[in-house]
Amino acid sequence: MLPTIAWENESVIMVDQRKLPWKEEYLSCRTVEQVAQAIEKMVIRGAPAIGLAAAYGLALGVRNLKTEKNLDRVFASFYQRLWRTRPTARNLFWALERMKKIYEENKNLGLNRLKNILLEEAKAIEEEDLKTNKEIGENGQELVPAEATILTHCNAGALATAGYGTALGVIRAAWARGKKIKVLADETRPFLQGARLTCWELTRDGIPTTLIADSMAGWLMRRGEVSLVIVGADRIALNGDTANKIGTYSLAVLAKENNIPFYVAAPLSTFDFNLKSGENIPIEERHPDEVRKVGGHLITLPEIPVKNPAFDVTPARLITAIITEKGIIRPPYGKNILRLRK
Amino acid sequence: MLPTIAWENESVIMVDQRKLPWKEEYLSCRTVEQVAQAIEKMVIRGAPAIGLAAAYGLALGVRNLKTEKNLDRVFASFYQRLWRTRPTARNLFWALERMKKIYEENKNLGLNRLKNILLEEAKAIEEEDLKTNKEIGENGQELVPAEATILTHCNAGALATAGYGTALGVIRAAWARGKKIKVLADETRPFLQGARLTCWELTRDGIPTTLIADSMAGWLMRRGEVSLVIVGADRIALNGDTANKIGTYSLAVLAKENNIPFYVAAPLSTFDFNLKSGENIPIEERHPDEVRKVGGHLITLPEIPVKNPAFDVTPARLITAIITEKGIIRPPYGKNILRLRK
Repeated sequence: MLPTIAWENESVIMVDQRKLPWKEEYLSCRTVEQVAQAIEKMVIRGAPAIGLAAAYGLALGVRNLKTEKNLDRVFASFYQRLWRTRPTARNLFWALERMKKIYEENKNLGLNRLKNILLEEAKAIEEEDLKTNKEIGENGQELVPAEATILTHCNAGALATAGYGTALGVIRAAWARGKKIKVLADETRPFLQGARLTCWELTRDGIPTTLIADSMAGWLMRRGEVSLVIVGADRIALNGDTANKIGTYSLAVLAKENNIPFYVAAPLSTFDFNLKSGENIPIEERHPDEVRKVGGHLITLPEIPVKNPAFDVTPARLITAIITEKGIIRPPYGKNILRLRK
Repeated sequence: MLPTIAWENESVIMVDQRKLPWKEEYLSCRTVEQVAQAIEKMVIRGAPAIGLAAAYGLALGVRNLKTEKNLDRVFASFYQRLWRTRPTARNLFWALERMKKIYEENKNLGLNRLKNILLEEAKAIEEEDLKTNKEIGENGQELVPAEATILTHCNAGALATAGYGTALGVIRAAWARGKKIKVLADETRPFLQGARLTCWELTRDGIPTTLIADSMAGWLMRRGEVSLVIVGADRIALNGDTANKIGTYSLAVLAKENNIPFYVAAPLSTFDFNLKSGENIPIEERHPDEVRKVGGHLITLPEIPVKNPAFDVTPARLITAIITEKGIIRPPYGKNILRLRK
C-alpha cells in the first residue's frame, strides 16, 4: 500500500507528491497551519486525501492545545483555516463538517477525552476511505471487459485517497481478477499528476501503463484504441454533474462522440447533496506559473497571461455511470443519487 | 517580419525554433544532409516552412556540385533524402515535386544555369508562400467578428511558413483591420509550439495572447470564452479531411459540441489532390522522449512506454470552412476542393 498520509508521533505525515516519482520524501506537519499549507501547495492532493488531511489537521490542532480556554473560538479558527485551503473538492468540506459534529458532541467531555475522540474520528475516516475504495473497485470492475484499454486522467489513485484509489481502484480490482488491462495515462498538465503519480503507482503494481499527452486522448479514441474512460471526481451535484481535474469535460465529450463508455468513480463523500447542478461548483483558478513552468523551468515567455482553471464540470448527460461504494449509479441521476443519501 | 528561413551566402539559414523564445539562434546549413536533419529534428517545422526548407535544400545540393557527372543519380539522392525527413505534411512533397519538375525541364542547360534556375525556383516558392499567406489572411479575416476571442493550436504562424502565417495570418489580418481580438494559445504538448512560438510571435506583434494548457480548451469553449477556433493544416484530402498537429481533432469535436465555428487555414500546397479521404494520411510517430521530457527534463519515469503521434486527422464534417488563398471553401468539400485544382 502506498503511504499517502499517516498519523505518527503526534504529527500528520504525508509523502510529498510534488517530488514524486523522483523522490519519496515525507513531510511531517506539526501544526494546523502546516497542514493547510500542504493542501494549498499540493504536497497532498486528490479529493479524498485532501479531506483526510484536513480531518487529521483538525485533530492535530486540538491535540496541540494546552488549555480549554476559548476552545470554540480556537477550534473555529482551525476549521476556517482548513476550509479556505481549496474550493472545489467536496470531500474537504465533508470531512471538516464530520469532524466538527464530533467536536460539538464531545467538547464538554474535557480536553483530554476530546483530543482522543477527534483523533479516533480522523483515523476512522482513513479506514473507511480505504474500505470504500475497495468497494468502489469491486463494484466498478464489473464494468471492465475481460480485455480492455482504459484511459484515465489525473491521479485518482492510492495517492489521491487513503489508499487503493477510486478510478485506479477499479483498475486494480479488475487487474486482481485477472482481466487483461492496459492503461493509458493522460499526463495531465499543468501539474502532471498523470505523468508523475499515475504512471508511478500503476507501474509499481505491475499494471501496463502508457503515458500520453492530454491532447492525444481524443485521437486514440477515434483510432479505436480506448475501450473505456474512467476518472475520479472532486464534487458531484445531485443531477450527476461532476467536477474533476481540468480536461475531464473534454474527455467526456470525446468519449461520447466515439461511443466509448465514460465512468466516474467516487465515494459518497464526494457528493454535494446541497447542490442541484454543477453550475454553481466553484472552480479553483491556480497560479499562472503552473502553466508557464514545468518542473520549475519556463516553457514560454515569463510574463505571458495565463488561464489556469484547475477543474472543469462534466454535464451528467455525458457520464455513462457513476461508481460508488454503494453500487453503480446510472441515469436518471437526479433520482438515483438522492437514493444514496444516508 | 520574422526570420523563419532565408538563403544567404550559399547557405540555408534558419532560426532554431527549438530554442525560441529564449534564444534567437540561427543555424546555417551548407549541405543537403544538414537541411534534412534540421527538418527531422524540428529546427524548422510547420508544413509550408518544411516545404520551403526542402526546396532550398535541393537547390543547395545542386549548387554544391562541381561536376555534372551522374547528375540524375545525385539529384535523386538529394530528393530522396529530403523526401524521407517527415511523412505527414503535404507541402514537403509538393515543394520537392515542383523543384524536380524544374530540374527535369532544365537539367540539359548546363550545370551553371541549372544552379541558378533551381535557386530562383526556391526563392519563388518563398515569395509565393508569403503572398499566399497574406491572401489567406485577407480572405479569412472576413470570418472574424469585430470582437472575438480566437483559440488556436500549435503554431501556424510566420515561423511555420515563409512569413505572416496561415492561421496566425488570419489573426494578423483581422488585427490589422482594427478588430478587437484576443488569442487563446494552446501550449501544444509535447513540443510546445503554442507556448514557445505562438505566444512569442503574437506578443511581438502586440496581439493580446493568453496561454492555456491543451486540456483547458474544451472547458473554455463550454464557458462561452471562445468565439472561434482557427488552426493550420499539414495535409488536406479531397473530401476536406485535415491532418494537423495532434490535438486538433479534439478541438474540432469540442467546437462542434459547443456550436463554435472551426476553421482551417492553409495554402493550396497543403492539399493532397491524390487522396480521397484522410484515412490514408500517414501519421508520424515521434520519439517517446518528447513526451517523457519537457525542455530536457524528465516529467515521468524514464522508461515509461509512450505513444507520441505528432498529428491527427479531423474529419471534414467537423470543419466549418477551409480558408485558402483562392477563397473560403465550405461544404460540400468534395466538389469545392476539386474546383481549386490548378
